[in-house]
Amino acid sequence: MTLHDAVEVILAKRDGATLSDSQIDWVIDAYTRGEVADEQMSALAMAILLNGMDRAEIARWTGAMIASGERMDFGSLSRPTADKHSTGGVGDKITLPLAPLVAACGVAVPQLSGRGLGHTGGTLDKLEAIPGWRAALSNDEMLAQLESVGAVICAAGDGLAPADKKLYALRDVTGTVEAIPLIASSIMSKKIAEGTGALVLDVKVGTGAFMKDLDKARELAETMVALGTDAGVRTVALLTDMSTPLGLTAGNAIEVAESVEVLAGGGPADVVELTLALAREMLAGAGVTDVDPADVLASGRAMDAWRAMISAQGGDPSAKLPVARESHVVAAPSTGVLTRLDAMAVGLAAWRLGAGRARKEDPVQAGAGVVWHARPGDQVTEGQPLLTLLTDEPARFDRALASLEGGYDVAPAGTPYTPTPLVLDRIG
Amino acid sequence: MTLHDAVEVILAKRDGATLSDSQIDWVIDAYTRGEVADEQMSALAMAILLNGMDRAEIARWTGAMIASGERMDFGSLSRPTADKHSTGGVGDKITLPLAPLVAACGVAVPQLSGRGLGHTGGTLDKLEAIPGWRAALSNDEMLAQLESVGAVICAAGDGLAPADKKLYALRDVTGTVEAIPLIASSIMSKKIAEGTGALVLDVKVGTGAFMKDLDKARELAETMVALGTDAGVRTVALLTDMSTPLGLTAGNAIEVAESVEVLAGGGPADVVELTLALAREMLAGAGVTDVDPADVLASGRAMDAWRAMISAQGGDPSAKLPVARESHVVAAPSTGVLTRLDAMAVGLAAWRLGAGRARKEDPVQAGAGVVWHARPGDQVTEGQPLLTLLTDEPARFDRALASLEGGYDVAPAGTPYTPTPLVLDRIG
Repeated sequence: MTLHDAVEVILAKRDGATLSDSQIDWVIDAYTRGEVADEQMSALAMAILLNGMDRAEIARWTGAMIASGERMDFGSLSRPTADKHSTGGVGDKITLPLAPLVAACGVAVPQLSGRGLGHTGGTLDKLEAIPGWRAALSNDEMLAQLESVGAVICAAGDGLAPADKKLYALRDVTGTVEAIPLIASSIMSKKIAEGTGALVLDVKVGTGAFMKDLDKARELAETMVALGTDAGVRTVALLTDMSTPLGLTAGNAIEVAESVEVLAGGGPADVVELTLALAREMLAGAGVTDVDPADVLASGRAMDAWRAMISAQGGDPSAKLPVARESHVVAAPSTGVLTRLDAMAVGLAAWRLGAGRARKEDPVQAGAGVVWHARPGDQVTEGQPLLTLLTDEPARFDRALASLEGGYDVAPAGTPYTPTPLVLDRIG
Repeated sequence: MTLHDAVEVILAKRDGATLSDSQIDWVIDAYTRGEVADEQMSALAMAILLNGMDRAEIARWTGAMIASGERMDFGSLSRPTADKHSTGGVGDKITLPLAPLVAACGVAVPQLSGRGLGHTGGTLDKLEAIPGWRAALSNDEMLAQLESVGAVICAAGDGLAPADKKLYALRDVTGTVEAIPLIASSIMSKKIAEGTGALVLDVKVGTGAFMKDLDKARELAETMVALGTDAGVRTVALLTDMSTPLGLTAGNAIEVAESVEVLAGGGPADVVELTLALAREMLAGAGVTDVDPADVLASGRAMDAWRAMISAQGGDPSAKLPVARESHVVAAPSTGVLTRLDAMAVGLAAWRLGAGRARKEDPVQAGAGVVWHARPGDQVTEGQPLLTLLTDEPARFDRALASLEGGYDVAPAGTPYTPTPLVLDRIG
């Protein structure tokens, strides 16, 4: 005797009702077990997307997804834990310098990451450009590395929120990705199940982000902060600009190289700024208030933690990184000021060059991607390199160039340029 | 190279756009071929249910479903054709006397019917209570019987609108049945593909119908009449009451017996009234204006056509009909006037007694059902039989009785009773 049936739950949400705790618990459990079919869950997801869920429903839905799998426990560690999640951006390599920096400040960082799909890159794809590095760790290996090194970036195991894993794959093919209740519960179920003590959310806003406007991004951030807080995780969110790509590179190996520059005390100013802003939030969430991450970065201790973290997962931090076989330079069309470089255009170009994948099972090219030689506000000279496209397969240049058309503006020299702030708001 | 992809079409409807002809043609064809998956079509169906389709979209969707299969052609027959479709009601045996009556008036009736699911009965289930009768005919057998007998009631072949067949089964399990665009296109794609020259729609309104209120029923009727008319089928719709069940029986064999009473010149007044009203519309649609079906009914020629129709499909019109093994009488609770008998309560009771099925693959009991001994407006006497429940399995009585609780009202003798008109409106 089952408590509910799928059609009853679908009809309730379709007709605008609030789902009961019992309906939510049942439908997530039955879907995980295969009793609720994919075609039933996709109809429910569409009804949720169009009719919404209230805060209590989202919290219960998140709890049910957590309950579908195991929960990790970092209570045995000698230091507090803090994690970061980005909703996905172009050139967003921040996790790479951030995790070892926060570890070097005395807070353990258990970063479960994903692979890229579409125009935003994946942290694991980037790290896999390092010869020997492996993403798969057992829970015991993860715990041991958190104790010894203080930072781990690895793939989430199959045991964590399996309902979310199944639902995420379904949403991807059924036009039901862009629902705030489903996005928030997907992210937060994994982060809460992971067992981190503190969490900082980097919610991206702009052309290159899932959330194109600030109001939607704020709603998503507020929903996730409430979910984390209610579950006992100290959670804050920064809303950050993603109309311009981060740093000067979008790809895999080239983003690793840029991250190492930051750890060495250099690197693009925006990457450094965002890394430090997120590090300060993670440290505050973990209760560490007497360490300035800028000092730790300058001291070289973050770089030491990076090398230890890469080595612990089989990677050689001194190895030469893969280089793309072919390159194509796009010259500045005129002399003046670069006033716009569109994150989506750059992200699509990098993806089409082979840095990302079209389907989950596709491989990525370690060396592919886009390097830009100026950021909005910089002077450019006609005929000088503006962008360099990198790939192993020159047949990919045409489609990458097409996606860059209309993706940047050069204004006459002297045109005033007002930069967009990188951090737009803070929630929590 | 495909013209479209499923996610693109889903997103368009999800975000409130009008689907293009090319998107509709592609998605129906690709779904029929299995390229669009069930989970994608169910998300699209939910988006259509919640965001609607305009008249042009519904017409194109219907056309695409017709194009997914074969079209029948009755052009070689020596007489015009007319068909009837009911949206489903309790005790709705009208097709049984209607088809032979219209045939006896000189118009061929190619009636493709279905089996019941849920609380409304299915015409084929009823006729299968007649020993020897078979529902499956080839297209050639159907055409030959239309020429020789003038009436055929049989199952729709697999070749007719296969996209609808697949989509209907999907909608049933995904909470997407109650969408006017999908209901209208499902019914009309089969009726247009069937090739009838005229069509009368009996759109039910009330507690026992899919459409509970008159406005929704009128919208459905207008949508279907427009679809039929645009496709060259002379189409009208009657909106008829389904707050009270039709006649005095709901089941299979007992509804056949009641239909034979009507053909013999007797039977309940409401069944006779609706049969004649629909017959007149069918005759008018077929261009036959000089025959009064009431005269033909009284002459016995409709009964002759019934016997010929049943015999042609292997049935014995003189055979004794199956009788349920067990019966249970519900007595009138007081003396007075029966002021209400709820169609849904009676339909659920008949279904739970075994006259209907819960899943498509379940069998039905030929003898099961409900007989009521009074209709609203009739006098009843305390302790005298009000309802008789029939089944082969006495364990079913309890749940059937539960569904009848609160399903009827007896008011003190002398309470005025105003009957609801049976035909509420006519569209077309």
